Amino acid sequence: MQHGGNLHDAKARFPEAPEPWLDLSTGINPNAYPLTLPDPRAFTRLPSPQEVSHTEAVAARAYRISDPARVAATPGSQAPIRLLPRLRARGRVAIVGPTYSEHERSWVREGHEILAVTTLVEALSLTPDVVVVVNPNNPDGRVAHPAELASAAAELHQRGGWLVVDEAFGDLDDEASIAPQDLPGTIALRSFGKAYGLAGVRLGFVVTAPALCARIREELGPWAVSGPALAIGAAALADDAWLAEQKVRLFEAAIALDRLLTGAGFHIVGGTRLFRLARHGAAPDWFVRLAKAGIWVRKFDHDPTILRFGIPQEETWTRLKQSLAAK
Amino acid sequence: MQHGGNLHDAKARFPEAPEPWLDLSTGINPNAYPLTLPDPRAFTRLPSPQEVSHTEAVAARAYRISDPARVAATPGSQAPIRLLPRLRARGRVAIVGPTYSEHERSWVREGHEILAVTTLVEALSLTPDVVVVVNPNNPDGRVAHPAELASAAAELHQRGGWLVVDEAFGDLDDEASIAPQDLPGTIALRSFGKAYGLAGVRLGFVVTAPALCARIREELGPWAVSGPALAIGAAALADDAWLAEQKVRLFEAAIALDRLLTGAGFHIVGGTRLFRLARHGAAPDWFVRLAKAGIWVRKFDHDPTILRFGIPQEETWTRLKQSLAAK
Repeated sequence: MQHGGNLHDAKARFPEAPEPWLDLSTGINPNAYPLTLPDPRAFTRLPSPQEVSHTEAVAARAYRISDPARVAATPGSQAPIRLLPRLRARGRVAIVGPTYSEHERSWVREGHEILAVTTLVEALSLTPDVVVVVNPNNPDGRVAHPAELASAAAELHQRGGWLVVDEAFGDLDDEASIAPQDLPGTIALRSFGKAYGLAGVRLGFVVTAPALCARIREELGPWAVSGPALAIGAAALADDAWLAEQKVRLFEAAIALDRLLTGAGFHIVGGTRLFRLARHGAAPDWFVRLAKAGIWVRKFDHDPTILRFGIPQEETWTRLKQSLAAK
Repeated sequence: MQHGGNLHDAKARFPEAPEPWLDLSTGINPNAYPLTLPDPRAFTRLPSPQEVSHTEAVAARAYRISDPARVAATPGSQAPIRLLPRLRARGRVAIVGPTYSEHERSWVREGHEILAVTTLVEALSLTPDVVVVVNPNNPDGRVAHPAELASAAAELHQRGGWLVVDEAFGDLDDEASIAPQDLPGTIALRSFGKAYGLAGVRLGFVVTAPALCARIREELGPWAVSGPALAIGAAALADDAWLAEQKVRLFEAAIALDRLLTGAGFHIVGGTRLFRLARHGAAPDWFVRLAKAGIWVRKFDHDPTILRFGIPQEETWTRLKQSLAAK
């Protein structure tokens, strides 16, 4: 399994690269939410059901969802990705890809049949039981329109199917979020760690019908989300001003990164405010050259000509600039 | 579901009790490990596989397990309790009880047949596929001898069965721990939060054969345990001196609590260094009287004459003493 973010592999493969490494292999906001470390008491006792409900209510408001019963807190979005395939009889699951590989892995684990498709229209043409869309998509940033998703959801729901929309990158790029719509048969996944730069906290949310939310809470069991995660999440998700500032700041950074990459001969394929996908005939060489300079980006098995670049922190901008200009 | 530790219920039922409540309804060490709050960076990035392995190695040393591949970190012990019933075909599961109710709930969820038994010998006489023992037992502190457990494990393993030993209270009362023994077919569960007074951290360990450990890691998925939990766990589990001091301190506290309860007319049924189980003909009255004094203890549906008392912090000792003497 290839995931971004494991610098140990980078160090093992390129032991002579200058330290510290600049890790651009993830889609995590480099400007972490300025968290106040939680009260140590949050570590000593089990979180109460009321703390869970409070954080879910704050998340509902942040995601513009009117009914907090439609929001279930989870320990990251990996947990519901693994769980959902267990909540249905085996069926045919169309995954709009290429995309985040954990979806396919999770449905396959539970014995479902995977239909690899490249568009939502193609997915629906195969009359599957479940359609999975990552929106905006990772790694290319492709955005499915909410109206398209709504009609897909209606079609699937009519035959008892599900539309799973992974909005892991939907906090900073939220124009196409379907979470606020109360669409029957739709399950939206939200990630807390990416937009808030706090991936280590392990917090995410499922947005769906109250009955399915209750089932998910029940399946995950009591205390699935840690007390500190609930406290940090509630504080950060209530801070609209911080998120609004990040939207501007990361939009500007994304444009600047595109310019830098274009200047180095890359063609920009797409992206979000948290990563850019770029194509280059010599992408494998660039990967090695950047790694030797201590810059770790993301490459993909399915296409060796693309590289994904996370948005660098302002302090590290010059380093990336020099490495990309060094050819 | 009745769990200890939810003071919200206490406050709702006894709104006029003096604040702050003294919560003796859990079996969590009142002397929390004096944690250094983790480096904020632990919150910003995903934990690496190396951080997971490091914490597992520290836990292996603390639990006197020679091979760290026999230890898998989990987000609390609730996660493996839920997971284990999914890793076997449906079968007959003997649970030595009365005991912690989540075991039965989890096996029932996955369609296994439950055999309610009161001793290990009775369990084996029914030739079940799985035997679950909590050791020391919660709530009565009953201890199964390691030699008995080893022969039960051997018998179960011979026919492809499992012996699941929940050692959630096995850090401070570790005389009977079978975790260090490499017994085929045995799965030991360890809880970090109880002995270290850090239940909010959500950390636990499964100790079993390396192949099953690998399967459990795979099932829980990447980043199941948060970065801060791994860091806090590694620091605390390496601190042998602190644990040794707690063993003495809590042993003395347990004896003092027994004396106090006996003085109030209770008969001590048993317990561990983290809780005492006491019987009284008027236990329901005592429960209400203590609650009205802002002291929350644990009662049980299966037997109204018993109450479980967590060990109070030294500062709150006088308050409990006065309430127990107040009759």
